[in-house]
Amino acid sequence: MTEQRHRVFSGARPTGRQHLGNYLGAIRNYVALQDDYDCIYCVVDLHALTTLSDTDKLRTWTYEMTLDWLAAGIDPDRGTILFVQSHVPQVVELHLLLSMVTPLGWLTRLPTFKEKVRQQPDNVNYGLVGYPVLMAADITLYKADTVPVGVDQAPHLEFTREIVRRFNRLFGDVLVEPQAKYTEFTKVLGIDGKQKMSKSLNNHIEIASPPEEIQGRVMQMMTDPARRYRSDPGHPEVCNVYSLHKFFSADEVGQIEHDCRNAGIGCVQCKRKLAQNIADYFAPFRERRAEWDAHPDDVWDVLADGARRASAIAEETITAVKDAIGLPERR
Amino acid sequence: MTEQRHRVFSGARPTGRQHLGNYLGAIRNYVALQDDYDCIYCVVDLHALTTLSDTDKLRTWTYEMTLDWLAAGIDPDRGTILFVQSHVPQVVELHLLLSMVTPLGWLTRLPTFKEKVRQQPDNVNYGLVGYPVLMAADITLYKADTVPVGVDQAPHLEFTREIVRRFNRLFGDVLVEPQAKYTEFTKVLGIDGKQKMSKSLNNHIEIASPPEEIQGRVMQMMTDPARRYRSDPGHPEVCNVYSLHKFFSADEVGQIEHDCRNAGIGCVQCKRKLAQNIADYFAPFRERRAEWDAHPDDVWDVLADGARRASAIAEETITAVKDAIGLPERR
Repeated sequence: MTEQRHRVFSGARPTGRQHLGNYLGAIRNYVALQDDYDCIYCVVDLHALTTLSDTDKLRTWTYEMTLDWLAAGIDPDRGTILFVQSHVPQVVELHLLLSMVTPLGWLTRLPTFKEKVRQQPDNVNYGLVGYPVLMAADITLYKADTVPVGVDQAPHLEFTREIVRRFNRLFGDVLVEPQAKYTEFTKVLGIDGKQKMSKSLNNHIEIASPPEEIQGRVMQMMTDPARRYRSDPGHPEVCNVYSLHKFFSADEVGQIEHDCRNAGIGCVQCKRKLAQNIADYFAPFRERRAEWDAHPDDVWDVLADGARRASAIAEETITAVKDAIGLPERR
Repeated sequence: MTEQRHRVFSGARPTGRQHLGNYLGAIRNYVALQDDYDCIYCVVDLHALTTLSDTDKLRTWTYEMTLDWLAAGIDPDRGTILFVQSHVPQVVELHLLLSMVTPLGWLTRLPTFKEKVRQQPDNVNYGLVGYPVLMAADITLYKADTVPVGVDQAPHLEFTREIVRRFNRLFGDVLVEPQAKYTEFTKVLGIDGKQKMSKSLNNHIEIASPPEEIQGRVMQMMTDPARRYRSDPGHPEVCNVYSLHKFFSADEVGQIEHDCRNAGIGCVQCKRKLAQNIADYFAPFRERRAEWDAHPDDVWDVLADGARRASAIAEETITAVKDAIGLPERR
């Protein structure tokens, strides 16, 4: 007896080469979810337009991110659909149709909208306001019943659920109301030890970096600021290097903590160890990535095939939605 | 030597059977423009969704309006493209892309938006706010360089021109900036003689009505309220019956005016004459309409063919727009 598997949808903006924060925060989960779910993962290039910056890099960044995802284990051969958002234009149709049932006030009252207005006060464009509507279209177009979210992202999904309920109340039971799958999205600090790791802050370590680059970045990492001399005892609980050891040096993390607290190991030595372990962890990844990168057409073919498979689901949904609303069908 | 003709775009919401206000205000112009322009006329069903009312009538109303347009002389055999907005989904793609360069403040500050908020305070949805962006997408997707507008609609077109200039400044000279063709859009009062003729006010006379129905509606028309008795002199300048005589009784309008002012003709007789002249005017129209209506598939075929021709232009534009922005192309 086989049970129908649930369907997961998730997307990420094309940001180019992925960093440790992307990996530990999302990619790792994406890979793991494939064991239990039918997964649809999307490079949401249209969402990237809401900021209107770096649009000339969208192609390269889409390619680089896809390379990282594939090399990390997102695997279309396991049934996963991996595609680019704008390649399936039905999402934009659904976005417009959903926009007709979405009160403007729902959008402008969202805390995330207010945050975005603070971030880009000179570019509060109409598309930015509709960001959550496009997200709702992404999820519902592909009939995803499960969306992995961190606890702090729950309001986003709740918004989608509200739109779905409103649409279905007006036009019949057409859209699937997705459920949250609460997932730990690890927050990773940048090498500055202060802010979230992020490309735009240039405090990141790319997972595709060769070992010497990884070492270069790790050696710049901030450690416990109270430990001024080699002989001072350290405080691992405030040290970002130690946080990363928990992931990449799981076998020795007890020893490292002990040695740090007793000044048995210096920060330089501790960082060298971390750099080595990160480099080792991603060695098979770098190999697979190089193989994909040797055949760029294969990468684009994966995305094209994903778009074809995504389109088939999308077409079913959009046809049902238009029919429910009453739009005249094209003959 | 043939000169390249300019291209006109105009659209109207599907409102079903057209009335004298639609005819004198728009359809007549649409027909005449075909002499000098390549014309694209669109049943803008997506715009109709901004009010969320009567969506179950969209199909019938699209059909009935198309019938009236065809019978009135909008003629695909003359090259005119007649189609339904939602049948060419590229317009929704362009709408989303333009929404990224449209400041929210431009939209919420528009007098027409404020008017709509007054009209439907309980349904200020996100789609309603974006109405002018969708209009800009309609016009620019089809590379129309000319848009017939009444003087009071000029701000709408100016909005489109501003979006075009902003888009082209950001991404290169991709979109055509349309020019206004100032056109007299005759305002027709309803049979109440007070408000604009409108289906929703039920003060309208449908152009497809059989003569006895036209007579029934005309006989209900308000005339000069100061003329209480048959022997009172009338004031044609305040009489809506007289206004319509100017269109439908052009040959005798001087005589009618004279007879009214001198009480030489009574209101009942004057209305009978008008009803007769309207019925005569639309006699060939009713015949052509009945012919089309006998073959509904032909009507839908006209729209399908229009959508195909419109799609070809749309695809050129959207490809150029996506390329200019830098979105990764689908292989």
